[in-house]
Amino acid sequence: MPAPWITYRPEIKVLDCTIRDGGLVNDHRFEDGFVKAIYEACVEAGIDYMEIGYKASKKLAARDQFGCWKFCDEDDLRRAVGDNPTPLKLSAMADAGKTDWRTDILPKKHSVLDMIRVAFYVHQVSEAVDMIKDAAEKGYETSANLMAVSRATELEIEQCLELLAESPADVLVVVDSFGALYAEQIEILVKKYLEYAKPKGKQVGIHAHNNQQLAFANTIEAIIHGANRVDATMAGLGRGAGNCPMELLIGFLRNPKFRIRPVYKVVQDYLLPLSRQVEWGPYVQYMITGQLNQHPRSAIAARASDQRDNYVAFYDKLITEE
Amino acid sequence: MPAPWITYRPEIKVLDCTIRDGGLVNDHRFEDGFVKAIYEACVEAGIDYMEIGYKASKKLAARDQFGCWKFCDEDDLRRAVGDNPTPLKLSAMADAGKTDWRTDILPKKHSVLDMIRVAFYVHQVSEAVDMIKDAAEKGYETSANLMAVSRATELEIEQCLELLAESPADVLVVVDSFGALYAEQIEILVKKYLEYAKPKGKQVGIHAHNNQQLAFANTIEAIIHGANRVDATMAGLGRGAGNCPMELLIGFLRNPKFRIRPVYKVVQDYLLPLSRQVEWGPYVQYMITGQLNQHPRSAIAARASDQRDNYVAFYDKLITEE
Repeated sequence: MPAPWITYRPEIKVLDCTIRDGGLVNDHRFEDGFVKAIYEACVEAGIDYMEIGYKASKKLAARDQFGCWKFCDEDDLRRAVGDNPTPLKLSAMADAGKTDWRTDILPKKHSVLDMIRVAFYVHQVSEAVDMIKDAAEKGYETSANLMAVSRATELEIEQCLELLAESPADVLVVVDSFGALYAEQIEILVKKYLEYAKPKGKQVGIHAHNNQQLAFANTIEAIIHGANRVDATMAGLGRGAGNCPMELLIGFLRNPKFRIRPVYKVVQDYLLPLSRQVEWGPYVQYMITGQLNQHPRSAIAARASDQRDNYVAFYDKLITEE
Repeated sequence: MPAPWITYRPEIKVLDCTIRDGGLVNDHRFEDGFVKAIYEACVEAGIDYMEIGYKASKKLAARDQFGCWKFCDEDDLRRAVGDNPTPLKLSAMADAGKTDWRTDILPKKHSVLDMIRVAFYVHQVSEAVDMIKDAAEKGYETSANLMAVSRATELEIEQCLELLAESPADVLVVVDSFGALYAEQIEILVKKYLEYAKPKGKQVGIHAHNNQQLAFANTIEAIIHGANRVDATMAGLGRGAGNCPMELLIGFLRNPKFRIRPVYKVVQDYLLPLSRQVEWGPYVQYMITGQLNQHPRSAIAARASDQRDNYVAFYDKLITEE
């Protein structure tokens, strides 16, 4: 029996986005010690990239209403990671329409960041391409993260991919923002992204959400079909249902450069205590928005209300509104 | 884009094993009201089978140390389901080596049960075949559930399948007892089981555990490759990490005969309260035993101890013992 899961593909690189996606759970209010612990765990585990936050516009988001990881100013970054004298690369996410990217993203030589990942919806692809060009010219690796792909049509996706293929983006990421996609759809999307990415020497990535307990499974599926860049978070921390759990992903990857013990350790020492203060995971409301291919905002609101245990009322409301 | 997940395969039949597998969490001590609620939810949801417990030997298991759903005596069954005047079929599981099947499994005409599922390990296949024959002769539908298939060799599996193909079993179930299997392995196993099952007019089933958050994904994978009998439980209730959650499975299946609202309702009204008394789900210890392809008993013990939050010590212990 051929057993491809026994071997490994050295091209596969893992990106930890615990602080970045997790920041959506707690308004980016992580203590420095928490961020340092994630950073050190990533280094020890042999993880390739760590996404440490957003580069949000201070005109749109009041600085004092969020933790500093929403903005990733250089002094905040260096307080956590120094000059980052490790093989771990650092990334920040820049949202189209929400970032003063011309001014707030510094030339690479003035930043401890290595990569800028540009997140955008279909209708924002033109600004996204400009942002990617700007970041590439400033000296960064770049990634194009087309969000909510489960709500886009094939034609929209193809037109985005045509533009992105001509951009300097190093990576095109399949982003299942709503946790709505099944394995067969992941396969189709990864193959489509590869059609555009491969001839240009770009890689394809996967960013999954766990609404239907499929984040890890869909990440494996994407890997099987050729995705070489995979996102995960410690204990699956992330908005709503959370992301692909790093402890499962590292347990699956067979590259001996990865070490799982530091992942279990940071999950035990930092994520378990955090889980007693804030909530994430595939609760029923998130299953429902995932099944209905909807943004999780209604589920987040329901979980935060005194109706959090009333699954049926939530389901009835969403079905009625559909 | 061809979208096979938009349509459905009418042959797919769903088996609810909430009470049976869930009984391993609470020594089968379910109140009658709980069992009735699951039964009614199954009927309303259009589920095909409900497995209501075990037919355990009263010589091996003391009657007063377990709830009645470990034994499934006829009067206990009828207290919950009456004469079952519904299209829902009822099943009980009989373990090889632990069942007085000659005496305790009544002729079908004296029982409200419709199906006997025989669970066994590789070395017990001969008794399993005898049990299947006995149950079939007594008038039941029968199923062969070879457990812990992730620990069996290909040759062992093939030799079992050869015997089972000649037995009267209506269904051969791929059972991932340890929650250790990945999608590619599920594909290989389902195809292998089908090789033996299809020529004899038998169906192939899937019973997944959720150690690696793959129970639902592996169930879908099995369906894609031809499994027509699928196990799930309300809220994923089941030993250790639990099973494939029914609310996810019914949300995935496109057959309009299934209704998801009664599933959410019983999850809300019965499983959520139960989750405050007993624990199940993909906790880190279960991930670790799943990744190491081990029986979950060490993880169950760790979760019940005062070391339940010490993931690293548990990992170190298991790795050292390997």
